Amino acid sequence: MNLAQSILEGNRLALARTLTLVENDHPDGQAALSELFSHTGKAHLVGVTGSPGTGKSSLVNQLARHFRHPPDGTPPKRIAIVAVDPSSPFTGGALLGDRIRMRDLSGDSGVFIRSMASRGALGGLAATTASLVQVFDAAGYELILIETVGAGQDEIEIARLAHTTLVIEAPGLGDDIQAIKAGILEIADILVVNKADQPGVENTERALRNMLELAHPTRRARFKEVQEKTAAPPAAFWMPPIQRTIATESVGIAELAESIGVHRRHLESSGEWQQRERNRLVSELQAVLRETLLQRWMRQVPDEVYQSVVNGLLQRELSPRQAVGQLLNGWLEDIGGEA
Amino acid sequence: MNLAQSILEGNRLALARTLTLVENDHPDGQAALSELFSHTGKAHLVGVTGSPGTGKSSLVNQLARHFRHPPDGTPPKRIAIVAVDPSSPFTGGALLGDRIRMRDLSGDSGVFIRSMASRGALGGLAATTASLVQVFDAAGYELILIETVGAGQDEIEIARLAHTTLVIEAPGLGDDIQAIKAGILEIADILVVNKADQPGVENTERALRNMLELAHPTRRARFKEVQEKTAAPPAAFWMPPIQRTIATESVGIAELAESIGVHRRHLESSGEWQQRERNRLVSELQAVLRETLLQRWMRQVPDEVYQSVVNGLLQRELSPRQAVGQLLNGWLEDIGGEA
Repeated sequence: MNLAQSILEGNRLALARTLTLVENDHPDGQAALSELFSHTGKAHLVGVTGSPGTGKSSLVNQLARHFRHPPDGTPPKRIAIVAVDPSSPFTGGALLGDRIRMRDLSGDSGVFIRSMASRGALGGLAATTASLVQVFDAAGYELILIETVGAGQDEIEIARLAHTTLVIEAPGLGDDIQAIKAGILEIADILVVNKADQPGVENTERALRNMLELAHPTRRARFKEVQEKTAAPPAAFWMPPIQRTIATESVGIAELAESIGVHRRHLESSGEWQQRERNRLVSELQAVLRETLLQRWMRQVPDEVYQSVVNGLLQRELSPRQAVGQLLNGWLEDIGGEA
Repeated sequence: MNLAQSILEGNRLALARTLTLVENDHPDGQAALSELFSHTGKAHLVGVTGSPGTGKSSLVNQLARHFRHPPDGTPPKRIAIVAVDPSSPFTGGALLGDRIRMRDLSGDSGVFIRSMASRGALGGLAATTASLVQVFDAAGYELILIETVGAGQDEIEIARLAHTTLVIEAPGLGDDIQAIKAGILEIADILVVNKADQPGVENTERALRNMLELAHPTRRARFKEVQEKTAAPPAAFWMPPIQRTIATESVGIAELAESIGVHRRHLESSGEWQQRERNRLVSELQAVLRETLLQRWMRQVPDEVYQSVVNGLLQRELSPRQAVGQLLNGWLEDIGGEA
């Protein structure tokens, strides 16, 4: 069975198997990815990020339901959900929770839910997530919801992967929680205050609005850069809306879904869609280049040369940069670098 | 003024300036780092990780005070505190908070507090933190406390940098918070339940103990590997203790400081100290190699060749791996790799 072909024909089993192979960085997974690549570039990638306790998983669930059963009679979209949970690689607890939570979607063949079981073999979590998303994209999933926990560098990288990034907050999680969101606010496209029936919703919304204003100069500079780099027609600056939802009662979901669509049209008309695609592909190319160059170089350097430099490093006679200088001067002159 | 020499003579201004240059990846910072490198390898690096709300910052503060004024009459240690806060690169809020909190240490010339202001220019947060720590190490700071927020891949990488990793919990933060700690528990050396006067402390301790047992096989496998790799005498397996503290009232701090010392002696006697140093230096070497190889290669590849492959990628005619194959086949034959 050719995995890529089977996926393109809509075989769910082949899809599941390929996702596992890709996650484990298996050569068959890599081969399938290469074959599928020309079919990617159509899906709308939506990142959903928020601290534990914000009800982000319920919100993802409700959004998926909405796009599966559009109240306005438009055709349902095929949905993939990638739950990126950097925790619990061995307990499996999160996976079980996800499954119970997503019960009402699980009978629907237009929905595919995938929990990342590991942190990713090579290149880290963000690189592995990017590969899984490519498989779903090629398989014809039109909307891919990428759910992440917390606010580390991972989340920032995964958010960069998405076309549209939702940051979820909830009342009553404390100022500390608000503070760690500052980094991610810079790349948020839509802010959601979930659990909007709980006390403190005004405070949370006000805190978000203040932080958004602080992030404003950075956002505007980034926007200007895109405008200059692309030949796109001048477009309006996107100021992230703040929207209230109560996911458990389906309140505000239709409005949120509408905002996601508005943001997509904004990206397309401003040239930012194209720019984000380009940035993503070029940075993926550079990551593969970096790793491949190292592997090839390691293969041709004589072991005794490498070991003697490593020993110098361990004895602290050479700093890491000096060690690299010494290794590359002897062994890379032919590709033309100086010390 | 030679920065490295001034730092070795104990000049705090030179130290502060070098830290900034290193954080911004400035060439003068890199030069100082290379010069200082032979003076590193003496400090005990202690990572302190915990979610917002666990009181981790107060705990770091109390630990620093303890080591500055040892109740048993041993000489005070020189302490550096590196506050790694992946948030708020632009608000400066966290920095101000740190400063207020650390007020009682700030007049002490044996303490140096540094908040990371940015995410690090090249190589990400973990690489930048590693460089700052090297500067402190060379400057003669004997104990370096590295404070991190949250539980992303960053934290895991920073924890790998430390000799001893403390994971801080507190009662009443919810099961969700507990769950995201699973990844980091695998590398925890000492578990701390802070705010131990609050209700729910038994539950938190029990949850930690359960998760520790789940992580046990992984920890044991890693330990066995170290035993096999090094010629160290057989040592006892380190089972992380769980300790209660109330940082705001200095309760349990002396016992925690004692545990940190016990762990250091355990690392030294089991050969793990040496192994961790080796792993860290080799992975730093490889990171610099990877980046340098890419930069040199980019410098020598003709622009039109690179651009035409990038265009193939953007048109989705080539996958990232295919693009790399095409680039390297033409331009790296001399260093002996196949496709």
